[in-house]
Amino acid sequence: MINTGFELPLDVLRARQNVKWAKYGADVLPAWVAEMDFSVAYPIRRAMDRLVQAQEYGYPQRDGRSADDAVATAFAARMQSRFGWSVDTDLVQPLSDLVQGTFASIWAYSNPGDKVILQLPAYPPFHESISATGRRLVPHPLKSDGTRYTLDIEGLEALVDTQTRMILLCNPQNPTGRVFDRAELTEIGRIAIERDLVIVADEIHCDLVYPGRQHIPIASISPEIAARTVTITSPTKSFNIPGLRCGVLHFGTRALRDRFHARVPARMLGSPSIAGIDATVAAWTHGQPWLDEVLVHLDANRQRLAGFLASELPAIRLHVPEATYLAWLDCSALGLETSAFDFFHDRAKVAFSPGEAFDPACRSFIRFNFATSSRILDEILGRMADAARSAGRG
Amino acid sequence: MINTGFELPLDVLRARQNVKWAKYGADVLPAWVAEMDFSVAYPIRRAMDRLVQAQEYGYPQRDGRSADDAVATAFAARMQSRFGWSVDTDLVQPLSDLVQGTFASIWAYSNPGDKVILQLPAYPPFHESISATGRRLVPHPLKSDGTRYTLDIEGLEALVDTQTRMILLCNPQNPTGRVFDRAELTEIGRIAIERDLVIVADEIHCDLVYPGRQHIPIASISPEIAARTVTITSPTKSFNIPGLRCGVLHFGTRALRDRFHARVPARMLGSPSIAGIDATVAAWTHGQPWLDEVLVHLDANRQRLAGFLASELPAIRLHVPEATYLAWLDCSALGLETSAFDFFHDRAKVAFSPGEAFDPACRSFIRFNFATSSRILDEILGRMADAARSAGRG
Repeated sequence: MINTGFELPLDVLRARQNVKWAKYGADVLPAWVAEMDFSVAYPIRRAMDRLVQAQEYGYPQRDGRSADDAVATAFAARMQSRFGWSVDTDLVQPLSDLVQGTFASIWAYSNPGDKVILQLPAYPPFHESISATGRRLVPHPLKSDGTRYTLDIEGLEALVDTQTRMILLCNPQNPTGRVFDRAELTEIGRIAIERDLVIVADEIHCDLVYPGRQHIPIASISPEIAARTVTITSPTKSFNIPGLRCGVLHFGTRALRDRFHARVPARMLGSPSIAGIDATVAAWTHGQPWLDEVLVHLDANRQRLAGFLASELPAIRLHVPEATYLAWLDCSALGLETSAFDFFHDRAKVAFSPGEAFDPACRSFIRFNFATSSRILDEILGRMADAARSAGRG
Repeated sequence: MINTGFELPLDVLRARQNVKWAKYGADVLPAWVAEMDFSVAYPIRRAMDRLVQAQEYGYPQRDGRSADDAVATAFAARMQSRFGWSVDTDLVQPLSDLVQGTFASIWAYSNPGDKVILQLPAYPPFHESISATGRRLVPHPLKSDGTRYTLDIEGLEALVDTQTRMILLCNPQNPTGRVFDRAELTEIGRIAIERDLVIVADEIHCDLVYPGRQHIPIASISPEIAARTVTITSPTKSFNIPGLRCGVLHFGTRALRDRFHARVPARMLGSPSIAGIDATVAAWTHGQPWLDEVLVHLDANRQRLAGFLASELPAIRLHVPEATYLAWLDCSALGLETSAFDFFHDRAKVAFSPGEAFDPACRSFIRFNFATSSRILDEILGRMADAARSAGRG
């Protein structure tokens, strides 16, 4: 077992105040909320140390411009260097978190009663963003071809009616870890253009893609798609800083931006803190070497998880994720009486994210966060196998 | 001259990245944006040091509850201990900044075209919150009785018509520094009740009140007033941490809260960062000894400013502020050809906030931020006097 330098030991994790390690009992290992059991990248630590050292908590500027501009500039530079996508910093709206961006976009581009298409299973706040704003969710189930989840384009086309206004797209997808390819994204774009839909693309997992796959920002595919696409992203997931609350919303055109601001004034969204801004700029500008190392480790965990399930728990089905540190486990063949979440929480003392939060039909699924140390991952896997065996479900 | 321990020297201030010291030339002394030239309170420094030390930037909890709850709890405790005001933590909505709270409240409780009453002169974002949301500003000018600015209650009553929905109240008032008394607040409340108006009370300066005056939260006066009052506040002004972005919005009743959330879903407002939360809790819970010392210093500056103007620049009229570290200077008797802002910027090399940003009719006014060291204050006052004399305006 290699010590990567960023894996935090169990005693440190247990002492944390974060919700991940605090929500469940001390005998439970948490593998739920999407946060990594790793220390943060040195450039982020340095940025935070400098902020605290200088104690400059006044109205911030960076490099002679507004601090918000620094975020937009770092975002644009990163999109160009990582994905060859040229973005205009004038079309960037800073956010405090991406759920805020989803809510605000739905608010801006649709009316109560309108329909919003969402691929299922889906990150729970996406469901909430549709229901809490009085819009109607149109479920667009991902299909399995036996080895991966795929977009059912014909199905998508058939779902669009005159009341449909938006597609809420999560790419790379949470919880399945699919990275949609150019052909899939182009088809989504075509339908959006033909049926006059706005696409809200949550691309927060864009940096967590494994070898063999490539993230393509849907707005980068064509100006016509960009003209109806709002992209929301943040370094909080890939750089493990969700508590610092900073992200961006990018409008594909000025017209789309102006339409948004006519419904949601920019100042209603507030402003990220200077801590979030400094951490974000540091992560996007100098964090990649750390992330490259983290990805090697996450990839090893991903393989370890897939291999273990195949050999020790073959009743649990997994399409190996192409991105994210999340695995979507189908436990239906275990024939459990309870939800899969309850089974593993009660019998294995492991807390996953319950499948039914992602899709009401998925109570025999769990979402497994494998961004932890090899040691803890092995302990979780061992507990799962023991629980299944002792319940006669192995 | 006493070194207070929190006054920062000129070289430190000049080296800062903040907008206050960076916006104007190196030969200009800034006395504009409402931020203090002081180091922050030790409890805030300690909270930030601990955060950075622990590097816990994940999804935060504090004391086993959500971090947002910690802010609400600290707010409730402080309102009780400082103002004898009991607030229900369930009625507290965290914000990233107070301008966000103003925009969101106007959005929630009125419609485009509706009228919003605002005492003038007023903090520029209040003007913006009304115009950018397509509402109509109804100016309610403060009156001068020769020694202080007063609320013209009869005038207020006459302004309300069937299209009037809200009163935007800033108390203590920015820029005049008035602390409205119980009689004045009770009258505002009476009118709001009789004419079915919602009051948005920005009370961010509530902690910066000088001896002889007392801040009364308008929502604390009666349950009937509370039922139509949204109070917004934050430690960012009094504890000098605006860049950390954290505040609260308090609804007087559940009904008022539910009405708000029907128009503005809570998650559209985002979340404060854990840095803002920890700093806020530290300030409100442990920051008062620091603030007590700061207030003694600010009071001395206030007296020094008033005395200097009276003896050296009697053409500049000032009603001594009862709260805030802001002074509203009427320079009309100087008979300037330019705006007062331009005159002092160009001739004295001092940057104030231009009066016309607070009221279009006030270009011969400036807002003077006197939260600086005695040394810098004296330099600013000397430059003002020299400029006035050399222009033959003294």
